[in-house]
Amino acid sequence: MKEMGKYDSRVFQHGTLGQLVPGLFEGTLSVSDLLLHGDFGIGTASGLDGEMILLDHVPYLFQSNGQVRILKGSEKVPFATVHFTQVKDALTVEKMTQAQLGQFILANYPYKNLFFAVKLTGEFEFVKTRAVAKQERPYKTLTQVADEQAVFEANNVSGTLIGYYAPALFHGMAAAGYHLHFLATDHTIGGHLLDFKVANAQVELQPFATVEQHFPDEDQEFLAADIDLSDLHAQIEQAEGQN
Amino acid sequence: MKEMGKYDSRVFQHGTLGQLVPGLFEGTLSVSDLLLHGDFGIGTASGLDGEMILLDHVPYLFQSNGQVRILKGSEKVPFATVHFTQVKDALTVEKMTQAQLGQFILANYPYKNLFFAVKLTGEFEFVKTRAVAKQERPYKTLTQVADEQAVFEANNVSGTLIGYYAPALFHGMAAAGYHLHFLATDHTIGGHLLDFKVANAQVELQPFATVEQHFPDEDQEFLAADIDLSDLHAQIEQAEGQN
Repeated sequence: MKEMGKYDSRVFQHGTLGQLVPGLFEGTLSVSDLLLHGDFGIGTASGLDGEMILLDHVPYLFQSNGQVRILKGSEKVPFATVHFTQVKDALTVEKMTQAQLGQFILANYPYKNLFFAVKLTGEFEFVKTRAVAKQERPYKTLTQVADEQAVFEANNVSGTLIGYYAPALFHGMAAAGYHLHFLATDHTIGGHLLDFKVANAQVELQPFATVEQHFPDEDQEFLAADIDLSDLHAQIEQAEGQN
Repeated sequence: MKEMGKYDSRVFQHGTLGQLVPGLFEGTLSVSDLLLHGDFGIGTASGLDGEMILLDHVPYLFQSNGQVRILKGSEKVPFATVHFTQVKDALTVEKMTQAQLGQFILANYPYKNLFFAVKLTGEFEFVKTRAVAKQERPYKTLTQVADEQAVFEANNVSGTLIGYYAPALFHGMAAAGYHLHFLATDHTIGGHLLDFKVANAQVELQPFATVEQHFPDEDQEFLAADIDLSDLHAQIEQAEGQN
């Protein structure tokens, strides 16, 4: 693709957030296959068992009991977004809330109409996260599950934030806006970020020319599901809502 | 991707329908680069100059003056969806309206939650198409342009229908539902299908495990655009509405 120039990078997503809304929580792609598509990223485990954060090829799972475990290659995930770190626009930020950081990036970064990855490494004055508890069949809807999440808070913590910004056009396929996960360096806190304040951190941004959306095309439950989209966007906002 | 089994097929899309809504009509990917990603498909030309139908590697453009021309490799397109014909579920249909055919496929085809390609070759009792007239800067919105389209009708015509079904989840990225183009064997009629009735035709369906969404990541106009999505879905329905 000669014309694509310097940013021939791509992000890979298995499953869609919209497909989780009606309760399609069963894993459909093995972690070992997922890792063929990226070394950093976010996701969840089968049954929505916690919050995955993929750091340098290692798929950590922060669980609702506050424990971290590493997913096995044979375990399957229903939803994950990953990419290979390739292009870095790096900057340093200090003393910013989640809302300030998000607005700062969108105001200054020329790729607001592309999917892009966000990675922060450094010190956080405050983080507030959530981790969903593992669900059993029959699965509830995503909105009902979000009400059952475990919530964690910590002050003065070192760690890594990783996630994605999705332009509003893709709401349904992903959560429009930022979708960010976190893992503390000492693994004492992690999960889906609800709120944070950066003390000082290195920010890395990576825009993607291509979004590769993969579907569980051999999963009979997915193929047969009647996905009612009439209130999908509202349900995603309720379940994934962030500041 | 060992687990993906027999359907490791993909569809490639450059640009999104949502991006056309506010008037981003300038071509951003060359036809020769587009053809690296498929031998069949649909699209439009720069400035929304007519309706593209890609048949067996040949990018025909049905224009609003009723003439067909073949796009040059150096011409750029703002929006196109293409795939390599790989898997065929074939059936024969007779005496079906557009609505009947669409419902028949969705009721019987096990891949309604995936993007899939639809191709019909055969005889049509009736076809009604439209082709958008080439737009000049400053570009209008897609809704305004759709009001200016040329409309064509013909009875008892042989030809090829090609297009895609997009699950509702992807409304914005594509038109939810069917998006179908047509070209008569003798080139006397073609364009974006508004209505048709099949006399008898061979139907070929091909589901995709992966949707590869490519963005014009070096196009400054796209990157800088403020895409107001508040009424995007309504505008797409109005501009692309089909039976």
